[in-house]
Amino acid sequence: MPKIGVVDTMFARVDMYPFVMEAFSDMGWAPEVVRRTVPGVKDMPVAALSLIEKDECDIVITLGMGGGADVDYTCVHEACTGLQGVMLKTGKHVIDVIVHRNEAKGEKEFLDICRDRAYKHAINAYWLIESPEELTKRAGTGERQGFGNEGSISP
Amino acid sequence: MPKIGVVDTMFARVDMYPFVMEAFSDMGWAPEVVRRTVPGVKDMPVAALSLIEKDECDIVITLGMGGGADVDYTCVHEACTGLQGVMLKTGKHVIDVIVHRNEAKGEKEFLDICRDRAYKHAINAYWLIESPEELTKRAGTGERQGFGNEGSISP
Amino acid sequence: MPKIGVVDTMFARVDMYPFVMEAFSDMGWAPEVVRRTVPGVKDMPVAALSLIEKDECDIVITLGMGGGADVDYTCVHEACTGLQGVMLKTGKHVIDVIVHRNEAKGEKEFLDICRDRAYKHAINAYWLIESPEELTKRAGTGERQGFGNEGSISP
Amino acid sequence: MPKIGVVDTMFARVDMYPFVMEAFSDMGWAPEVVRRTVPGVKDMPVAALSLIEKDECDIVITLGMGGGADVDYTCVHEACTGLQGVMLKTGKHVIDVIVHRNEAKGEKEFLDICRDRAYKHAINAYWLIESPEELTKRAGTGERQGFGNEGSISP
Amino acid sequence: MPKIGVVDTMFARVDMYPFVMEAFSDMGWAPEVVRRTVPGVKDMPVAALSLIEKDECDIVITLGMGGGADVDYTCVHEACTGLQGVMLKTGKHVIDVIVHRNEAKGEKEFLDICRDRAYKHAINAYWLIESPEELTKRAGTGERQGFGNEGSISP
Repeated sequence: MPKIGVVDTMFARVDMYPFVMEAFSDMGWAPEVVRRTVPGVKDMPVAALSLIEKDECDIVITLGMGGGADVDYTCVHEACTGLQGVMLKTGKHVIDVIVHRNEAKGEKEFLDICRDRAYKHAINAYWLIESPEELTKRAGTGERQGFGNEGSISP
Repeated sequence: MPKIGVVDTMFARVDMYPFVMEAFSDMGWAPEVVRRTVPGVKDMPVAALSLIEKDECDIVITLGMGGGADVDYTCVHEACTGLQGVMLKTGKHVIDVIVHRNEAKGEKEFLDICRDRAYKHAINAYWLIESPEELTKRAGTGERQGFGNEGSISP
Repeated sequence: MPKIGVVDTMFARVDMYPFVMEAFSDMGWAPEVVRRTVPGVKDMPVAALSLIEKDECDIVITLGMGGGADVDYTCVHEACTGLQGVMLKTGKHVIDVIVHRNEAKGEKEFLDICRDRAYKHAINAYWLIESPEELTKRAGTGERQGFGNEGSISP
Repeated sequence: MPKIGVVDTMFARVDMYPFVMEAFSDMGWAPEVVRRTVPGVKDMPVAALSLIEKDECDIVITLGMGGGADVDYTCVHEACTGLQGVMLKTGKHVIDVIVHRNEAKGEKEFLDICRDRAYKHAINAYWLIESPEELTKRAGTGERQGFGNEGSISP
Repeated sequence: MPKIGVVDTMFARVDMYPFVMEAFSDMGWAPEVVRRTVPGVKDMPVAALSLIEKDECDIVITLGMGGGADVDYTCVHEACTGLQGVMLKTGKHVIDVIVHRNEAKGEKEFLDICRDRAYKHAINAYWLIESPEELTKRAGTGERQGFGNEGSISP
């Protein structure tokens, strides 16, 4: 049975974990899931590393939120750079779901973005592990997470 | 007994170490604590590394302050990138408490931010070591350090 | 027979893989090609790593697209930093084809850039593996991918 | 006897090495000092690495100067990131003295900043090796190098 | 006999390799030189790595050119970060000659900058290998490559 790590944060204002589980369920997928919650995005990479190296997860999904200030973007950048380091060290995918606080104007729209992004990236994780050909079918088609797809520009 | 490393700096204008010890005490926690003081934020990562690799600390808390100029933000960014490297190399959490000089207008407000951020992150360190389920209970609830919590956005 | 890895994304709005194959064909080159599709640019480095370390590819071409917002540039930067890490770890070239959404005004022009950049970089990959002297012949001549060459400035 | 590495550059417009030696002398400290001069700041990290790994220095002080243009700040950033890598790899402190050309308006003021920063950081290096408790005494007191101390903000 | 690697690019609009060879000749130096041409700056680090690890070069000179757009500066930054990684991994110097397209207004001036920077850095490489004391003689004297020296600011 595949083993999936999920890292989320106390900082985020939306609990995105249920959207991941919903996506797995909708796919008819019941992998073993190990969840770790950390304070904020900069704590996610080492948690992801531990899920891969110690818990032997096959893939990790990180659910992070960035505030809207410049310094928040820098924190997210540091976290994402750290996640690249985790992937480089372990050879495993870490699907990085980041929502920036000011991507939406209102709370309802923000929640919708969180849900859509987490849900779709959970499906991406499923495909990476179980059906990589599903990803290739959609190559170059402008798939988006958090928003509607942009579609393909064809010759 | 858990062993906790604390790195602080001469550059900071507030001595944040007592806030960490106060938090541990309030939690009824009495781990072994090893403190290292370095000149500024860029010297923190190697001190944290040494606390983990040589002193065998289970977790490290770094207490750093950034000045308000552009070049100070870059220094903090370099320090934080270095801390990601420490976590990646050791697999241990480094809880990174950074306060930027211009987060507050007056000295009183600045001091309050320092106290709140250091205190709450010390509790986060405690939870990471002793009660990780406390973090998960608060996933997605908008917990902040340095300011009041922002709360959860729920469906 | 050389083995070439190609990584592309669902995020991209143009399927650049056929342009790579067209270039190989035009060169009369028929290497073994292994294709991996990932969600977006930040997922490319670990896919490239895997193609080199597990599939034993001699070189990898990544086909990525960035959106036009600031945060998209940061994502591309994180991906490219990750690709540097892959090259540093493996000692193999990863030819990094990136097209930014706002390099062109219209869709037709955008498609042309994608085609030209992917096609020419596929030839570069071919030269790196089979005829490195072709690259040296063109040293300092202002070769471009995606646009016309700029030419050499000679004494 | 402790062994101290000093890296400086031809690019810098001030020879900061004598200020380091003066500080050591004022401290009554006579460690073995190995000096390496490189072209500019981006060449400092590998020189520091070599001083630690091959010459077995206990600590390294780098004396760098940045020009005032944007591209110069980026070079300094790359150098500082490299120095973080050196510290992470070796576990040894590299005290990074950087002066930016436009921190001062006139040459006299610039020289004063260089002298003060190099002198004080040399003392910091001394304390790190010989008397780390001196650093801790000054934790959170707003110590500056290059300028006067800012002092502590106390409750 | 020392072995020198030179990496240059097709992207550059000036062939800087002859300036390197001219400098070596003017110094009366005839090391073994291994040249590798790559598409652009982001391909330079892995080529430099290979020259050091496989070809056993003692030092590498990279000759890169950046375009004038923001995204070009980012590419150069990624390349330079990669070169820091190469130096950190191998312990060998990589002398990084970068010319940005908009450092000059006209083509004649641009060519002069390229020539001067490549020529002088080739001499720096010679000094690093054969006469490091020549570098120390010039410590803090404001040596520039691409432009005239700025000179020393003395007490």
